[in-house]
Amino acid sequence: MFGFYFSFSSLCGPRPAFFLRYNRETMVPHLTTALNGPLLELEQRILDAMPRIEYWLRTQWLEHGTPFYASVDLRNAGFKLAPVDTNLFPGGFNNLNAEFLPLCVQATMTAVEKLCPEARNLLLVPENHTRNLFYLRNVARLAQILKLAGLNVRIGSLIPDLAGPTQLDLGDGQTLTVEPLIRLPGGRRIGVAGFDPCAILLNNDLSAGVPDILKGIEQNIMPPLHAGWATRRKSHHFAAYQHVADEFAQLIGIDPWLIDPYFDQCGKIDFQARQGEDCLAEKVGNMLEKIRVKYAEYGIDQPPFVIVKADAGTYGMGIMTVKSPDDVRELNRKQRNKMAVGKEGIEVSEVLIQEGVYTFESINGAVAEPVVYMLDHFVVGGFYRVHTGRGADENLNSPGMHFVPLAFDSACQLPDRGLNPDASPNRFYAYGVIARLAMLAASVELEEIQKEINGQSTPS
Amino acid sequence: MFGFYFSFSSLCGPRPAFFLRYNRETMVPHLTTALNGPLLELEQRILDAMPRIEYWLRTQWLEHGTPFYASVDLRNAGFKLAPVDTNLFPGGFNNLNAEFLPLCVQATMTAVEKLCPEARNLLLVPENHTRNLFYLRNVARLAQILKLAGLNVRIGSLIPDLAGPTQLDLGDGQTLTVEPLIRLPGGRRIGVAGFDPCAILLNNDLSAGVPDILKGIEQNIMPPLHAGWATRRKSHHFAAYQHVADEFAQLIGIDPWLIDPYFDQCGKIDFQARQGEDCLAEKVGNMLEKIRVKYAEYGIDQPPFVIVKADAGTYGMGIMTVKSPDDVRELNRKQRNKMAVGKEGIEVSEVLIQEGVYTFESINGAVAEPVVYMLDHFVVGGFYRVHTGRGADENLNSPGMHFVPLAFDSACQLPDRGLNPDASPNRFYAYGVIARLAMLAASVELEEIQKEINGQSTPS
Repeated sequence: MFGFYFSFSSLCGPRPAFFLRYNRETMVPHLTTALNGPLLELEQRILDAMPRIEYWLRTQWLEHGTPFYASVDLRNAGFKLAPVDTNLFPGGFNNLNAEFLPLCVQATMTAVEKLCPEARNLLLVPENHTRNLFYLRNVARLAQILKLAGLNVRIGSLIPDLAGPTQLDLGDGQTLTVEPLIRLPGGRRIGVAGFDPCAILLNNDLSAGVPDILKGIEQNIMPPLHAGWATRRKSHHFAAYQHVADEFAQLIGIDPWLIDPYFDQCGKIDFQARQGEDCLAEKVGNMLEKIRVKYAEYGIDQPPFVIVKADAGTYGMGIMTVKSPDDVRELNRKQRNKMAVGKEGIEVSEVLIQEGVYTFESINGAVAEPVVYMLDHFVVGGFYRVHTGRGADENLNSPGMHFVPLAFDSACQLPDRGLNPDASPNRFYAYGVIARLAMLAASVELEEIQKEINGQSTPS
Repeated sequence: MFGFYFSFSSLCGPRPAFFLRYNRETMVPHLTTALNGPLLELEQRILDAMPRIEYWLRTQWLEHGTPFYASVDLRNAGFKLAPVDTNLFPGGFNNLNAEFLPLCVQATMTAVEKLCPEARNLLLVPENHTRNLFYLRNVARLAQILKLAGLNVRIGSLIPDLAGPTQLDLGDGQTLTVEPLIRLPGGRRIGVAGFDPCAILLNNDLSAGVPDILKGIEQNIMPPLHAGWATRRKSHHFAAYQHVADEFAQLIGIDPWLIDPYFDQCGKIDFQARQGEDCLAEKVGNMLEKIRVKYAEYGIDQPPFVIVKADAGTYGMGIMTVKSPDDVRELNRKQRNKMAVGKEGIEVSEVLIQEGVYTFESINGAVAEPVVYMLDHFVVGGFYRVHTGRGADENLNSPGMHFVPLAFDSACQLPDRGLNPDASPNRFYAYGVIARLAMLAASVELEEIQKEINGQSTPS
């Protein structure tokens, strides 16, 4: 029954006719908690401060160049609305509402004008997946957007043993041709056979490190190599986010905690050798206590929890929900192994301890987590990860997780003060604001990494 | 019957349910001429050259700042697709497809970032209409777009005897509050009572000259005062367009005539005193001959015609369709009076002679003329002026003309090479390209006027 309700939403094409028989309202998640007072107030304040917010963001974008694109995972607890992950290599463009394709195209035009106006040929470098149809459809959609923005687009793959141009069947009537990424004659440029791109767009998060073929090339790489997980750390991101959130909270007169999850870190941890466990348990305990104080302040009657996850990486391997310091000490071998191995077999040694934010949005009994998509600094849409088998305190973006994407049904730039603060256009506007704060934090974060790199390479 | 088919299209809100019973295809005009060979070839070339076109436009926008907004009237003759008027104070935002509102908001954000990033408060200065509901709904829609882009917006009217804030009923459940435009204390700024705007957006084409209250103020006026018809001349615009069209034609390898109407001018003309008539008749004759040569070249079996209209002004008063030099000499008194009086009673003394371009697009027997809307350099939608009582060789934007607006049903940035060159998304893309050429010409034209103004005010 549930499957039937959502089966349409994974399609990219026009909605099947039966959709029209349903009331749209039933297709938008709603909050399943009575604890929505602070959120309603937050959403009301965001709505009221809209011109001030947009002005402030405009001045921020004058000072900080944005990454090419990003997606931000949000959690809406009714009493708190916060980003929990900012992905600079978004992998779900196929999940966006197809009606907003023109919005994606227009935003891409702006991004290209700013980052590589001279580009005609663009090479898209995806993850090495060949069987993940969902991901491949994302690559196809992204290539379509880039083509509609007026670029010649080819797809250059890092798959080591790719013999030649390979047509992949996307299972929905589409195919996608990926070609082996090569160094072009001269050695300072990369491309695919017969195609010398002006710019490279990475959709590969470089979890396994920066491959040699991407090093020392003269073409413009977007986002820069140091945006990959070989360099990036979530703790840096959330440190930058904290500053952004503080400033924003002051702007609209709220407690920054309402939009900012606590975080901490613990140096190197070896889960299998049980090194660093005491530090982790202690910090988890401290954070749970801080959250408890806040919950008491806001009258929240839920057990606090924290999330322990890799400080580098996106795919959600090695993620733990922890409600007591003992949870960390009492890990069994299987759990230790799971935490020790991140994406692509990389050992997790640095972890982020992050305040857990409940997802109290649900649709037909299933937990829903909003994901907001941005191109340049424009919000171009989003979708809900809807999952029946998960709890409100679990990560919805973890391995083996079969979420059903539910595209946002309206755009994020149509707030309406004539409606309630939690009406769908207003909620989507609030989501777009918080997501842009995370995008701004990512801009600051990348600037800081760049400064560090420059500092290392320039004699002082 | 016809009225019934179109009655929905003037609504801004969601389409009424009965729309869903009709096939969308019947709602898109189609060409009613067999003479569409050259156009299909043109559209095919535009489609094939898309990445080259977008790259070329991107480099043009780096060199030329665009006006805040524009609308371009196109004529599609099947053998020729050309702009016939470029309006820098577009008055039909209410006619655009409401689904593309987010596209308008995003483009406005870009325009504001470029032209007035420091603006929080924006004053919109409309035409002095109080009873033209269609125009007032345009103002309301424009104010809505600006608000959604995050600005505080008030409407400052130039109506001389406006006593105070006045609520106008838009006849569709909406109201619009206009306030008297005033000089603020200090004398160098304008606004409305209690509102000091950072920027002024003109939606008034200044046909009657620049009013004193707009002169010598320190705020940023968009578009600049010299974009008004007190300064602007269509002949300057089409001279700039000719250069743009030539360059573009070379880029994609076509005869520039396919996208560029001939034009000429005749100094001062006094229709009532019959001065300048010989010059006009001669130039009309020459132009008809030039068109005849082109028609022979392309095997076009239609009588050539030219349009004689005011060189300054938008509202279509004093517009003549002329098929022979004698038509100019044989004007009766009524026709002379009509030509002599332009908008707001201004005497027409300078006229533009423009090659007539047939409108061979029609829908259910009615003539349809596409109008493309742009914000910054982004195409944000468009509509057809649909008119049952007019011929394919007549101007559809003239006084007393009750056209029915039919919003473009899809966006202009979704060309699909898998479809025929005249399929709706491809035709809309071609319209968007030609409209952007006209926007580019307007940018160059305004730069030239600015240079002239600077030259006059700076000692050499």
